[in-house]
Amino acid sequence: MSNDQKGRQPRLERLENALAQREMDQVRRLLRRGLPPADVAQLLESIPPRERDILWEQVDSQAKGEILQYLNDDIQTEFLNRMDAPELLLATQQLDNDDAADLLQRLPHTTLEDILSRMAPSRRASIEMVLSYPEDTAGGLMDTNTITIRPEVTLDVVLRYLRRHRRLPESTDNLLVVTRHNELIGVLPINRILVSAPGISVREIMDTDVVTLTALMHEDEVASIFERRDLISAPVISADNRLLGRITIDDVVDVIRENSARTMMSMAGLEDEEDTFAPVLRTSRRRAVWLGINLIAATIVSIAIGFFEDTIQQIAALAVLMPIVSSMGGIAGSQTLTVLIRGLALGHVSGANVRWLVVRELLSGSINGVLWAAIVAVMAVVRFHDMTLGAIIAMAMVINLLVAALAGTLIPVILKKLSIDPALSGGVLLTTITDVVGFVAFLGLATAMY
Amino acid sequence: MSNDQKGRQPRLERLENALAQREMDQVRRLLRRGLPPADVAQLLESIPPRERDILWEQVDSQAKGEILQYLNDDIQTEFLNRMDAPELLLATQQLDNDDAADLLQRLPHTTLEDILSRMAPSRRASIEMVLSYPEDTAGGLMDTNTITIRPEVTLDVVLRYLRRHRRLPESTDNLLVVTRHNELIGVLPINRILVSAPGISVREIMDTDVVTLTALMHEDEVASIFERRDLISAPVISADNRLLGRITIDDVVDVIRENSARTMMSMAGLEDEEDTFAPVLRTSRRRAVWLGINLIAATIVSIAIGFFEDTIQQIAALAVLMPIVSSMGGIAGSQTLTVLIRGLALGHVSGANVRWLVVRELLSGSINGVLWAAIVAVMAVVRFHDMTLGAIIAMAMVINLLVAALAGTLIPVILKKLSIDPALSGGVLLTTITDVVGFVAFLGLATAMY
Repeated sequence: MSNDQKGRQPRLERLENALAQREMDQVRRLLRRGLPPADVAQLLESIPPRERDILWEQVDSQAKGEILQYLNDDIQTEFLNRMDAPELLLATQQLDNDDAADLLQRLPHTTLEDILSRMAPSRRASIEMVLSYPEDTAGGLMDTNTITIRPEVTLDVVLRYLRRHRRLPESTDNLLVVTRHNELIGVLPINRILVSAPGISVREIMDTDVVTLTALMHEDEVASIFERRDLISAPVISADNRLLGRITIDDVVDVIRENSARTMMSMAGLEDEEDTFAPVLRTSRRRAVWLGINLIAATIVSIAIGFFEDTIQQIAALAVLMPIVSSMGGIAGSQTLTVLIRGLALGHVSGANVRWLVVRELLSGSINGVLWAAIVAVMAVVRFHDMTLGAIIAMAMVINLLVAALAGTLIPVILKKLSIDPALSGGVLLTTITDVVGFVAFLGLATAMY
Repeated sequence: MSNDQKGRQPRLERLENALAQREMDQVRRLLRRGLPPADVAQLLESIPPRERDILWEQVDSQAKGEILQYLNDDIQTEFLNRMDAPELLLATQQLDNDDAADLLQRLPHTTLEDILSRMAPSRRASIEMVLSYPEDTAGGLMDTNTITIRPEVTLDVVLRYLRRHRRLPESTDNLLVVTRHNELIGVLPINRILVSAPGISVREIMDTDVVTLTALMHEDEVASIFERRDLISAPVISADNRLLGRITIDDVVDVIRENSARTMMSMAGLEDEEDTFAPVLRTSRRRAVWLGINLIAATIVSIAIGFFEDTIQQIAALAVLMPIVSSMGGIAGSQTLTVLIRGLALGHVSGANVRWLVVRELLSGSINGVLWAAIVAVMAVVRFHDMTLGAIIAMAMVINLLVAALAGTLIPVILKKLSIDPALSGGVLLTTITDVVGFVAFLGLATAMY
């Protein structure tokens, strides 16, 4: 047998080398010799823009559709916008309806209309149906290409019917059993056909306890159902139980991967589908927005410190120690915040148990507050020979770790209620609070006690 | 048909209510009425420890194995350690070999031996084989329960053979074609059996270009292959091409989900499989470690500021403005760091293109450095009526954003080379550098220029 792993890696490396040395004949030869589209996409995502454009130009138009599917949004949009209608039509020809719709929706409206008008009416209708649902719903994810059977036929007949197909749609693990009005009444697992007697009827062995998805269900819920039920595919139905299409696990895996990446990237104010090798200007522009938001936060903190300028003038040691108070609060708060963001994403955290979490975090904050306050106080006394300073920093630390616990728990819950992504704005809000509270508590206590 | 979605939510809610009101008869009744194990696990993860223990006690021993599979490591380990050998045996009886091995490996060695000794020899051998591979490899993930066929038989014979099974192993999309020495020579997609003539031989229609996994392949690579090839299952082979087992997409989905969560949790110094409702003491202990590491970092920063105590004493305005310099550097650096951590995880970043990224980040850092330096300088001049102060903070900002760009790119690459998780320690290292550089640049320039 030809071992795919052994054969693939060198081929991809040879492509990379040929590209680096600008041996275009060799690049084209390697591309045509059946490199899997996902691997070509991986290489395109891993090289800087100039090499990327050169490689993309060498890809045959028919092969572009499959590769585009695996590229991140940034690059996808860029490449799609460079293609004209005939090339787009050629590139998406081989794709399933859902995959074609997924790409085409990134195009400007007029280009999309142009391409749809050039398609066969049935293909066009299928793609338009998928496009009629929001991208992040079951309807937007589904493939309309399904194999349906009637309940009254026998397996014999089913098998004969299947043999009329050259191949079944990918990831077909179930045949969908529908009435003459296209209402879904059950599914027949393919594997069950194989282990059952040919004379038996579909109705006798079909599953009626089917996990169905409704067209407007959010993709996160779709992913959660696939995960919990270990599904390979699931039918999508309309509100009146008509079969619309099916979703397969490969598309769900993409949803899962993208969602997890989104949270992590959001926490740093980045977009999840960002091109690793985005050009300088695009990178600078996107980063500038986040730096601007952070500057507002830093200015608020700076204003808070400004109220204590006179105290700092008298005791410069305060300026030396104050970052410790704010930094410990920020770290403690971020830990609580991250636990809550994950808990909300997994559906663990709901109104009923937030109070339990607040209490747990406040208790944990007290324990760590007292522990680290004592250590920091000793450090301060040793360094500055000033018992009052030790007492002040200890008190400020305890206050800040308690505030961090409270803010870390409540900020994500409140943001979620307001339909604001807690991963995106939670961190800035939290550290602004822990910085302000840390500095004001420390400098305020110092102003009062000296 | 019974719609699972409509029926499930109320049942789970009824269980939650019954538990809250301590109606134990009702809890047991609902548990036995076929709530999916994943849903019970979800509820267990979403309630505080006391309710969780009460609910767990009501679950039948036979049902515990399926539920345990879906629980996070924290809770899994806790529950497993409370069960005795006979109960463990009962609980894992219905599980596939890979799932049973996955649970049993969390037990102390003596308990594990005890349980294995009570199993049927064939079951024991299968589980021991899975246990012989590290948990995070293909061997540790695989199920040993496969359906194999010989190349010379016809589909007719295959179908008759399959009908002797009551059901096929879950997610069986391929039959594995092996020689008499158990060497894998191809796969026969189930769907192809259905669309082919019964008289044809396996050899004529099998796929020989098979994606195979080797037993010691890391689970991350397994996940990447499944994703790129849109696989439902893949065979696992030994170094000499013997078939050992197969991995199915449901286990890969778990790997993908856990890995993405791990990066996000690591960045806050948390464990990925942490129980959202971990008790106070366990939470405090785990958080204390991270706070301690951060205190070392904060102390280094504080020592750096300490060198400029005299300058601050003269110009307290420096203490008011200095957090702006460090905070902007930290934010810019974290963005670069996150892009690099994701790029490394996705395999986009390699030795060859790091230089391109460093240049891109330095250019982007310069642009944003100059932009925000100008704005902050104006703010400082307006606030303190001091042109020198404006010039100093502008210079410090540009320096710190350039250092942030360099550190954000190089830290993860270097940590990765040293086999240290960049997500875990990258953030602390980075902000320590940007804090120290920010404060030293700002206060140092001030000391020199006043």
